[in-house]
Amino acid sequence: MQRVHVGLAGSPYEIHIGGALLARIDTFVAPLAPTSILIVSDATVAPLYGETALAAARRVAPTALLELIGGEQHKTMATVGRVLDALVASGADRRSLVVALGGGVVGDIAGFAAAIYMRGIRYAQAPTTLLAQVDSSVGGKTGVNHPRGKNLIGAFHQPALVLSDTDTLRTLPPRELSAGLAEVLKHGLLADADYFERTLRDLPRLLACDEEALAAAIARSCEIKAGVVARDEREAGERALLNLGHTFGHAIEALTGFSRWLHGEAVGCGLCLAADLSHRLGLIARADVERIEAAVAAARLPTRIEGLSLRDALESMRGDKKAEAGRVKFVLLERIGRAVQRTVPDEAVAATLAAAGYR
Amino acid sequence: MQRVHVGLAGSPYEIHIGGALLARIDTFVAPLAPTSILIVSDATVAPLYGETALAAARRVAPTALLELIGGEQHKTMATVGRVLDALVASGADRRSLVVALGGGVVGDIAGFAAAIYMRGIRYAQAPTTLLAQVDSSVGGKTGVNHPRGKNLIGAFHQPALVLSDTDTLRTLPPRELSAGLAEVLKHGLLADADYFERTLRDLPRLLACDEEALAAAIARSCEIKAGVVARDEREAGERALLNLGHTFGHAIEALTGFSRWLHGEAVGCGLCLAADLSHRLGLIARADVERIEAAVAAARLPTRIEGLSLRDALESMRGDKKAEAGRVKFVLLERIGRAVQRTVPDEAVAATLAAAGYR
Repeated sequence: MQRVHVGLAGSPYEIHIGGALLARIDTFVAPLAPTSILIVSDATVAPLYGETALAAARRVAPTALLELIGGEQHKTMATVGRVLDALVASGADRRSLVVALGGGVVGDIAGFAAAIYMRGIRYAQAPTTLLAQVDSSVGGKTGVNHPRGKNLIGAFHQPALVLSDTDTLRTLPPRELSAGLAEVLKHGLLADADYFERTLRDLPRLLACDEEALAAAIARSCEIKAGVVARDEREAGERALLNLGHTFGHAIEALTGFSRWLHGEAVGCGLCLAADLSHRLGLIARADVERIEAAVAAARLPTRIEGLSLRDALESMRGDKKAEAGRVKFVLLERIGRAVQRTVPDEAVAATLAAAGYR
Repeated sequence: MQRVHVGLAGSPYEIHIGGALLARIDTFVAPLAPTSILIVSDATVAPLYGETALAAARRVAPTALLELIGGEQHKTMATVGRVLDALVASGADRRSLVVALGGGVVGDIAGFAAAIYMRGIRYAQAPTTLLAQVDSSVGGKTGVNHPRGKNLIGAFHQPALVLSDTDTLRTLPPRELSAGLAEVLKHGLLADADYFERTLRDLPRLLACDEEALAAAIARSCEIKAGVVARDEREAGERALLNLGHTFGHAIEALTGFSRWLHGEAVGCGLCLAADLSHRLGLIARADVERIEAAVAAARLPTRIEGLSLRDALESMRGDKKAEAGRVKFVLLERIGRAVQRTVPDEAVAATLAAAGYR
């Protein structure tokens, strides 16, 4: 088992990574002494792991299991309302605990419900996708979508602990495993060139769900993300670097209705676009761009998504919540292993999009 | 003009108290350099002060005015949704500002919308009722009601500044002025016996809307509340003392459908019940109870509310969110000017309720 400490002032917590953790969730949760527990999961994950977690959690406190309808399109205030109703119905008080058992969507919804129930109760993340294990379960971002924009409604709310059971990745569809690897590649690209190279070497083992390789990657990714978050919890500065590939990725998701591509697939493609833009602005060499594209392809992620509108993509990025007063900031690569945030002229962005087949 | 500093680590802010402040809101808001402003108000306050605030705010940034339907029954997630929609529609970004212009309900809704829009943007409180000026605009509690409980959904989110324009109290219905005085009396009772005595002396001037007396009381009440909040932002301990009279008060509100009595009126009556309970538990003298009842009556607040069910009241207090695992904590008076939190046996609570006419 690996452990990563997230050293946030006021709300530090531990990330536990390894096999067979869910069946032992009671040993991790017991020190929190919750008065009751609500496990929030979805229709995919609950049948696989719900009973295991429920049986273990009940050794600590009265526990209920709520099964949500999965999918980004249900990441709405209405679904948060279902979690709040379940908390009220179970008599949850200020010392109750929410456990998010599932992927990023479940974590975002359950974490946000915990953030606003009685102005904030504790929650534990038990992420069951690689994407959630390396990304969304670390950092305390919770929230849901608004009809006019992704993650427009939410809160910063740090989990009391994170339990990443690598066994759950064996039941993960291959497309979702690759989607998680997009964030793994991103962490190397923005902060640690050695880690990027190691990931490239390990890709075959990672794609084959080798436990050791997975646990090592999850731990290193969490360390990188946790370090950034601890230095900049409220996203005033450095944390923005974690959005490498995401401004492009969000636009891809928005233009395809948040349904055709997985978040990680859009980010994988977004990494290639961010690399191309970095090259156009004179920051990295063409060979670096090609190396990044090769890594994205080797992770079985799209390097190019055809048929999107250049104008719509630009419009979408201007409306992105990272924009301030209409000016779009991009995270770019100074070199592999080092990212920087810049305001970029529309012409350069348009050139990158045009070269990638946007019309 | 009076000024009170709220010294919260990480998010300190100033409360400005005096006449004719709304027409100068631009001078207070300008240092925040907002990219846009959304003034949230209601159908009572917007016609009186909306244009004044709008004209002044527009000197700083593009400003829109949203008029909500007033009243506790509309303090819901649906109304928060209207504010979020207005923020999205106006293109609000992370440097935009929400201004809550109205009473506590408007402040709670607008502040909560600001707390969860893009995971938190800044807001200013411009309270227009005495209750909001001495209580709900200080401390960063925001939120809305759930069908099953008051303020069950919310967030701690500190305002960037508070602007208490005492001129707005001249248009306040007399019942609401008295309701605000309940919190003024409460602050003296729990923290400052001299202030309690001064309030008793000043009651005629306060009820006549004397600006000097009001500004002095608002400032002292804000100092007391701000001091408590600064020492205990997350309500782990001392802050609970601010709930003096509120456990009883909440029960009165719940049993009468949150419509028959104003919050402050229920609190006024709750102060008398808390005083009686304190006496029954051997903490204060019978004469103190009578002095408190006389003060509540002099503020034109109810000291006794007939016709409520004793069993329902006990049940309601057990479901109160300050209860933990079903045990109800009460804030009691050790003496006038000093409060303490205790877990109280049901029998003593029942005796107080029975003596007050609950059946």
